[in-house]
Amino acid sequence: MARILITSGPTRQYIDPVRYLTNASSGRMGAALASAAIGLGHDVVIISGPVQVEYPQAARVIPVRTTDEMLDAAQNEFARCDGAIGAAAPCDYMPRVVSEQKLSKTGHPIQLELVETPDVVATLGQQKRDDQWVVGFALETEDHRFRATVKLQKKHCDLIVSNGPQAIDSQENEVELLDVHGDVIADIRGSKEVVADELLRHIDQRLVVARSGA
Amino acid sequence: MARILITSGPTRQYIDPVRYLTNASSGRMGAALASAAIGLGHDVVIISGPVQVEYPQAARVIPVRTTDEMLDAAQNEFARCDGAIGAAAPCDYMPRVVSEQKLSKTGHPIQLELVETPDVVATLGQQKRDDQWVVGFALETEDHRFRATVKLQKKHCDLIVSNGPQAIDSQENEVELLDVHGDVIADIRGSKEVVADELLRHIDQRLVVARSGA
Repeated sequence: MARILITSGPTRQYIDPVRYLTNASSGRMGAALASAAIGLGHDVVIISGPVQVEYPQAARVIPVRTTDEMLDAAQNEFARCDGAIGAAAPCDYMPRVVSEQKLSKTGHPIQLELVETPDVVATLGQQKRDDQWVVGFALETEDHRFRATVKLQKKHCDLIVSNGPQAIDSQENEVELLDVHGDVIADIRGSKEVVADELLRHIDQRLVVARSGA
Repeated sequence: MARILITSGPTRQYIDPVRYLTNASSGRMGAALASAAIGLGHDVVIISGPVQVEYPQAARVIPVRTTDEMLDAAQNEFARCDGAIGAAAPCDYMPRVVSEQKLSKTGHPIQLELVETPDVVATLGQQKRDDQWVVGFALETEDHRFRATVKLQKKHCDLIVSNGPQAIDSQENEVELLDVHGDVIADIRGSKEVVADELLRHIDQRLVVARSGA
């Protein structure tokens, strides 16, 4: 049995007290992965941005709002985990300056300078011990497989799940699971529950069982 | 009996196929207003951005995503309505340029130029016939009452509801209802249902009954 950290859902980066940048990630993939992991007997802790999805009762859920909060929570929890699955879609840009008051409309354009937020999965990938593993997700609108492999290497992941933007806020998904060589281990399509079960089967065989010395 | 248009929820303005600007409006105030209006015997059509809230069965709901879509739908429906309540929080800025592909992180900041979206309530206010009425909402972080009165006049509203950012995504609300002179007609606090019932009572007396020649 392993202890698995799953990040899930979107994060928000506020530009003022009301408006924020985000994406439509629903947390459904994270919830399905948590159920699949629990079904295999693993302990699950979920770090989730604001979502409406119901996570399995057996999982411990830590709610966060921004990418920084997700990173802090993930680093705190990861030390006590065997591995992490980065199924969240953290907002990866934030305004350099956040307005303390709601920006009033003036009739003129606003110039917003966006800087990158810290990368949650890359940070876990860099900090992982030899006995820990990290599985990332890559969502690309083009060159899926190539870009996913680049991300896997840059973020020191052990496996990466490549999917397209149609995955967001949908019931279904179609993914490729890639290893460190960029080889396609599995090509899975179906409901997020079916995809999650199949992904967890591969993660279990290649990462959990392998490391437990079985 | 009147036919009332209610706008509700947030809208989204995408900067690329995945990321968008929005706010945390839940649609709860719009749903409560719809229930209150139906309770008074009115016909209700709701134009709603993406929300999870359940609208009353008796209301017709038109789902939209962007502010432009909300404006189009509102203009189409308003012609057949007696009045409109603008309870939505449309995203009021959009990027001048929308990227067709997901923006890839490069390590460098992005300069995003945001321009104002069309104002849904102001457009209805400008276009209303003499027998039609428009009630707006103003959400301000400072100078609530003054700014709400300015908005009422600029947007040609008949009444305006002034509230603060704590209204967003909460169960409760605390509002002031202002008339065209900037006078406070009502100061209401409580659950969104209580606030909505009280607001509808005032709207009914001052706008619906008055215009029906009663």
